[in-house]
Amino acid sequence: MATIRLISEAEATGKVKEIFDDFKKTRNVDFVPNYWRALAAFPEYLEATWNKYKTVMLGGKLDRLTKEIIALAVSATNGCEYCINSHTAAVKRLGLDDAAVVEIMAVVDFFNASNSVADGLQIAPDILPEVQD
Amino acid sequence: MATIRLISEAEATGKVKEIFDDFKKTRNVDFVPNYWRALAAFPEYLEATWNKYKTVMLGGKLDRLTKEIIALAVSATNGCEYCINSHTAAVKRLGLDDAAVVEIMAVVDFFNASNSVADGLQIAPDILPEVQD
Amino acid sequence: MATIRLISEAEATGKVKEIFDDFKKTRNVDFVPNYWRALAAFPEYLEATWNKYKTVMLGGKLDRLTKEIIALAVSATNGCEYCINSHTAAVKRLGLDDAAVVEIMAVVDFFNASNSVADGLQIAPDILPEVQD
Amino acid sequence: MATIRLISEAEATGKVKEIFDDFKKTRNVDFVPNYWRALAAFPEYLEATWNKYKTVMLGGKLDRLTKEIIALAVSATNGCEYCINSHTAAVKRLGLDDAAVVEIMAVVDFFNASNSVADGLQIAPDILPEVQD
Amino acid sequence: MATIRLISEAEATGKVKEIFDDFKKTRNVDFVPNYWRALAAFPEYLEATWNKYKTVMLGGKLDRLTKEIIALAVSATNGCEYCINSHTAAVKRLGLDDAAVVEIMAVVDFFNASNSVADGLQIAPDILPEVQD
Amino acid sequence: MATIRLISEAEATGKVKEIFDDFKKTRNVDFVPNYWRALAAFPEYLEATWNKYKTVMLGGKLDRLTKEIIALAVSATNGCEYCINSHTAAVKRLGLDDAAVVEIMAVVDFFNASNSVADGLQIAPDILPEVQD
Repeated sequence: MATIRLISEAEATGKVKEIFDDFKKTRNVDFVPNYWRALAAFPEYLEATWNKYKTVMLGGKLDRLTKEIIALAVSATNGCEYCINSHTAAVKRLGLDDAAVVEIMAVVDFFNASNSVADGLQIAPDILPEVQD
Repeated sequence: MATIRLISEAEATGKVKEIFDDFKKTRNVDFVPNYWRALAAFPEYLEATWNKYKTVMLGGKLDRLTKEIIALAVSATNGCEYCINSHTAAVKRLGLDDAAVVEIMAVVDFFNASNSVADGLQIAPDILPEVQD
Repeated sequence: MATIRLISEAEATGKVKEIFDDFKKTRNVDFVPNYWRALAAFPEYLEATWNKYKTVMLGGKLDRLTKEIIALAVSATNGCEYCINSHTAAVKRLGLDDAAVVEIMAVVDFFNASNSVADGLQIAPDILPEVQD
Repeated sequence: MATIRLISEAEATGKVKEIFDDFKKTRNVDFVPNYWRALAAFPEYLEATWNKYKTVMLGGKLDRLTKEIIALAVSATNGCEYCINSHTAAVKRLGLDDAAVVEIMAVVDFFNASNSVADGLQIAPDILPEVQD
Repeated sequence: MATIRLISEAEATGKVKEIFDDFKKTRNVDFVPNYWRALAAFPEYLEATWNKYKTVMLGGKLDRLTKEIIALAVSATNGCEYCINSHTAAVKRLGLDDAAVVEIMAVVDFFNASNSVADGLQIAPDILPEVQD
Repeated sequence: MATIRLISEAEATGKVKEIFDDFKKTRNVDFVPNYWRALAAFPEYLEATWNKYKTVMLGGKLDRLTKEIIALAVSATNGCEYCINSHTAAVKRLGLDDAAVVEIMAVVDFFNASNSVADGLQIAPDILPEVQD
């Protein structure tokens, strides 16, 4: 249960209504997720975040699946339940199956582990030669 | 400065030497990074971690660049300096330029932000209709 | 469901009862929250934590609302459900409405984002001139 | 040392130059911090982030000092060195002394501690009566 | 509810069945926990993780209780509900009572607090004389 | 470089001097670490923290080495450089060698990894039978 009241689509007016409509059209969905409904309590913040979303997720050169995989990896690292549900659904809509989701988690696993050890032993950066991979 | 003494390649023997050699051959590099030299103080752990690395990073179906991008995203989220240096170098060797590295960070930025807000407002998961994207 | 049995007010004796009574009187409430009931399994720890709470939250020069806002920002960053519920309730009792709670989250959002990018790109501190703001 | 090359003010053109100029004017400073110079490798992301900054930090109803205190509390919780330096400088410019900075940290301390315990014992939310504080 | 379908013991075959059997025999339990059933969607990852578990938790020189205490402390710091439940159960099976669990949390509390303050004030490492304790 | 001026032992007076003296006597050392010198800018907070330290680290039933191991595991998970240096030194003074430090990190590694996966796949708690270990 959210700690604030979410704005429903029915009660949205003005800038909030415009952004809700743009969201549904741009994402090609017929509802506005709870996250965006929550931000609507501060309409200018909703607008700046939606503009940033379009720039970051729909602009640039990396493909959409790669970006949703990053979103899932970050959300798993932070343990954000809402976000994990949302981005797992997204990578599945984009074609990944359960085995691929677990493969993403295997990578998330390895580097959360090695991050804690590299920090925990204060390992100094390698003086990197030009390496071929 | 690491908090423990790292095992050098020159002094490695037995299982540790075998893994150091396998590392350099498998990764096609001519030195062993400090991270792996640190793990060598507990040789069975070095071995289990190296075996897991090969399974996770060299096996499966996702491509190597996607996995290094996940590694960089996780390392940025955790703020691990050694790891950020290592995986930024890796994605650059695999062809990404500075603009692409910043684009990865833009995605890391967006979802660390939205994770904290989704948690901070205790936003409940959406009851997801079947969505097209 | 807590992983340990919480001490109820009815069964509290000695030092624990004294602290429960002081808590209710000092905070002007008629019940002891679950957090404090959990600490009571180690009474000296309960006492040291309660004394620290009074020093940190009721002493010093910053006002109470600012301190509850910090508590909420930290709890959102860590994703602690119990704590988010508790400190959202606190800032609302002190006068903030839903829009202000979302405005706090907007700031939490911006800096969790920029923290991950500043770390993820290993950005060096600015050599700061004396700046006016 | 940043992992990417930062864009200098001298080489900025077009959208990047416009934002660098707006930054210096809006913040009343005579240089562009490294964080913003780093984002410039992806100009649309720089622009979206700067617009969000202005909305979040210069809009809304909470005062600027409270927002910089939140920024510092979040940065301390995440351990982001660049950010801690930047926001400590900001709260000092806005009038806080060393004792007040440590008082902020005392609150950050208390709630990072209680967050880990509330999570670590899986403490259930209180059924909150209407409480006066 | 897991975001992927867990593999049941009844449907396990080949490598997965071998590992499930080894798990139950090695840990002396009559069921396979959900965590291991989830990993089974990527069988080589399940195998590498189980081999690492045996090396890390059943090998080395530190005793099992100390290792489960570390696991609980890490899980509390990360706020992982599944893990907290699992490792609290483990330390209780190994003989700890509620007071000892809270004592572990008291230590977790103190150092999550001091970590955030040491980072938040950018405290430099002490030049350590040889200290007796 | 700390973001605030640390109080030196020479300039300490009153409550701060008493605590500095008690620290050196209780810990049997001849200097006051930077962490405690930093807290001295808010003397009542220094006092409450020192009292809590004595309760948590010198009281209770768990032995000192176990507590320093927890401190190191938490500090590695959070990536706190000052704290990692301090607690690695502490476990070494209490008798652990490099191999044991790496063994602690191997456990920290395993559970930071499994925490991220258990969260990232939203794995539900096992309905736990009474298990023997």
